[in-house]
Amino acid sequence: MINKLYFDYSNKKVEDAAFEAINKEQEHIGYYALPEQNIQPILDYEKSIDVACDTVVVIGIGGSSLGAKAIYNFMKPLNGLKRKLFFLETTDPLEICSLIDILDLEKTHFIVISKSGNTVETFAIYKYIYSFQNKASAYTFITDKNSQLDQHAKAIGASVLHLPDNVGGRFSVLSPVGLVPLALCGINIQSLLDGSKGVKESFFHDGYMKDILLKKATFYAKNHAKYHINCLFAYSESLKYFCEWYVQLWGESLGKHQKHSAFNVGLTPIGLIGPKDQHSFLQLIMEGTRDKSVTFIKIKDFCQSAIIPDISLPHLENLDNLNTLSFSTLINMQCDSVIEALQDQGDIPLDTIVIETINEETIGSLIFYYELLTSLVGELIDVNTYDQPGVEAGKIILKKKLAQ
Amino acid sequence: MINKLYFDYSNKKVEDAAFEAINKEQEHIGYYALPEQNIQPILDYEKSIDVACDTVVVIGIGGSSLGAKAIYNFMKPLNGLKRKLFFLETTDPLEICSLIDILDLEKTHFIVISKSGNTVETFAIYKYIYSFQNKASAYTFITDKNSQLDQHAKAIGASVLHLPDNVGGRFSVLSPVGLVPLALCGINIQSLLDGSKGVKESFFHDGYMKDILLKKATFYAKNHAKYHINCLFAYSESLKYFCEWYVQLWGESLGKHQKHSAFNVGLTPIGLIGPKDQHSFLQLIMEGTRDKSVTFIKIKDFCQSAIIPDISLPHLENLDNLNTLSFSTLINMQCDSVIEALQDQGDIPLDTIVIETINEETIGSLIFYYELLTSLVGELIDVNTYDQPGVEAGKIILKKKLAQ
Repeated sequence: MINKLYFDYSNKKVEDAAFEAINKEQEHIGYYALPEQNIQPILDYEKSIDVACDTVVVIGIGGSSLGAKAIYNFMKPLNGLKRKLFFLETTDPLEICSLIDILDLEKTHFIVISKSGNTVETFAIYKYIYSFQNKASAYTFITDKNSQLDQHAKAIGASVLHLPDNVGGRFSVLSPVGLVPLALCGINIQSLLDGSKGVKESFFHDGYMKDILLKKATFYAKNHAKYHINCLFAYSESLKYFCEWYVQLWGESLGKHQKHSAFNVGLTPIGLIGPKDQHSFLQLIMEGTRDKSVTFIKIKDFCQSAIIPDISLPHLENLDNLNTLSFSTLINMQCDSVIEALQDQGDIPLDTIVIETINEETIGSLIFYYELLTSLVGELIDVNTYDQPGVEAGKIILKKKLAQ
Repeated sequence: MINKLYFDYSNKKVEDAAFEAINKEQEHIGYYALPEQNIQPILDYEKSIDVACDTVVVIGIGGSSLGAKAIYNFMKPLNGLKRKLFFLETTDPLEICSLIDILDLEKTHFIVISKSGNTVETFAIYKYIYSFQNKASAYTFITDKNSQLDQHAKAIGASVLHLPDNVGGRFSVLSPVGLVPLALCGINIQSLLDGSKGVKESFFHDGYMKDILLKKATFYAKNHAKYHINCLFAYSESLKYFCEWYVQLWGESLGKHQKHSAFNVGLTPIGLIGPKDQHSFLQLIMEGTRDKSVTFIKIKDFCQSAIIPDISLPHLENLDNLNTLSFSTLINMQCDSVIEALQDQGDIPLDTIVIETINEETIGSLIFYYELLTSLVGELIDVNTYDQPGVEAGKIILKKKLAQ
């Protein structure tokens, strides 16, 4: 991936301190070590699943679903995946029942994921599914070691895999939480880790990524009060769920009380898909309040050579200059045009990320890039990037209501 | 629908002036009159489509697709729709080819929608589809009278329907732009209009909606510099595309240079779906910068009585208080818990909208409610709600690139 910043900012002292802090975090934050993990146990486990099973359903929500969903939907348009993957991540009865209606339970494997082992949504859905399917072999559980879910899995004799220590939900996509369902679908999880390892090594060993991530994070943090909305504008439908993953990662990590003050701070993530959102959100970026930065993601090679045919239609001749153009050229041309138009405004911080093509390695690199960026910005705006105390209050109220 | 504001604000003089301005706008802004239109021509047209056709594809982008998509996806989980509806609204080659792969062209009707009649994306896709399917009877066109697309449709002998005067793209869902594809799917478009008419009459004839919409719009406008992010948090997956429609309506209407100053202003829309986004964006609302208002949408009756079974699972007994609860009760309980937790913060403007159930009337009322709210806030923050000059620059650059 190539990341180009259209803003210039440098503060060597701040950058050095941030790098040191992140370097040190590796000792106690688990996600940094995931690119080097041994995936053999996951590959062995994958072989244990019946080849007749053609559908995998993840029962999980938030950090337990968004990562695998992002990668699966990025890879899916290329076809050739081994199994279909669905997600049960809501208590909306219509959504749950619509999915169950189309499942062949005999050919479906369920992966129940809950880090803490006590997520209300996940258990409500699991119980419901269990009333249709009570064979332990139809389930795999992924949870923290010794959680109640871990004990449950062992009690019913189902497979269980554990999260490594100190890996939070929204940083867990490269742990078994993401790797297990993806491996079951035939996605090359080693390539995924290789992609993330490339970014990691470049960052920690004085490569290209160190310079660019530090510059970008320092700029975002320095200007977080002014440019507090960070748009990710991806020019491909295949990145739609990557944007949702980014929104969780960014919003839940960076919206906090500061560690050394009582102030509420936060950077608001927005995911956009081009060219569709040129006809929606772009007007607000162009002429609205100057509070938004924009990162464009472009895919160089779509692995799809569909071409606009060389035909002339009555009264539409003025569009004949589209003829013989490939759609992949057109979509990237549209992206470039919007970048140029925004550049002309002069006061909107822009950058572009270009990935080579659609494969496991590129999405792996994007994921680790955003995880590192989040960690850096969190350090620089003085928040605890890895907790989420703000969601507890609602859970406590719900528990009280349920107890009544 | 019942809308309850958890903030108190009133400025009679400002409210009266805004009401007068909107009342007067009815003379030249077309969308206000749509609830009373005669839909007989659309119903007659629907009968002219071959009953063997089981799939409808809208080729259109932005205002030409988001409205019908919102309503179709709201109604779809209930099943029983007459035809499937798809949207071609991107130049992403993978997305276009994935859809074409699953279409049976003999049973598919295409609706090409472009208000102006010269949208690049729409024509690129139309040309591509035309190279597979060149029978005029497979197409219907919806565009402004006398546009080049109107002339094209007539030249090839295809059906064409027109937009009423002065109806902008993002306010066009209740015009043929939305009604034609929805009618083809068997959605009761008269009920849809009846729902919108209820809100319109209540607003313009001193009903409940007048008071509440004026209060809410005045509060949003008065505080637009502080609470400039407006989250719509809908507790049902069926409202996912309604949120996308809202994002376009709100962002593109309100992100502008002010009419009587050079200032860039804007209100940033964010669509959220509960309970999923409790595990993503909620932390940022709870503890992040105090720049967000939140509107919750709840559905009282999901028309789906799925119940969490009365079973106890080993090591998960502490969740037995979920047993015998219906999912619809649980999801609304989750919503209430989050509202209470946010209320406790004391400085986040909240309101709730409760709709009775999932049908045409309720979604029609939601649509007109948001259109009126947008018009009011636009008037109050001094922008031209109905134009989108900011998107022109990118289009001009693209045209230059295409000409090269």
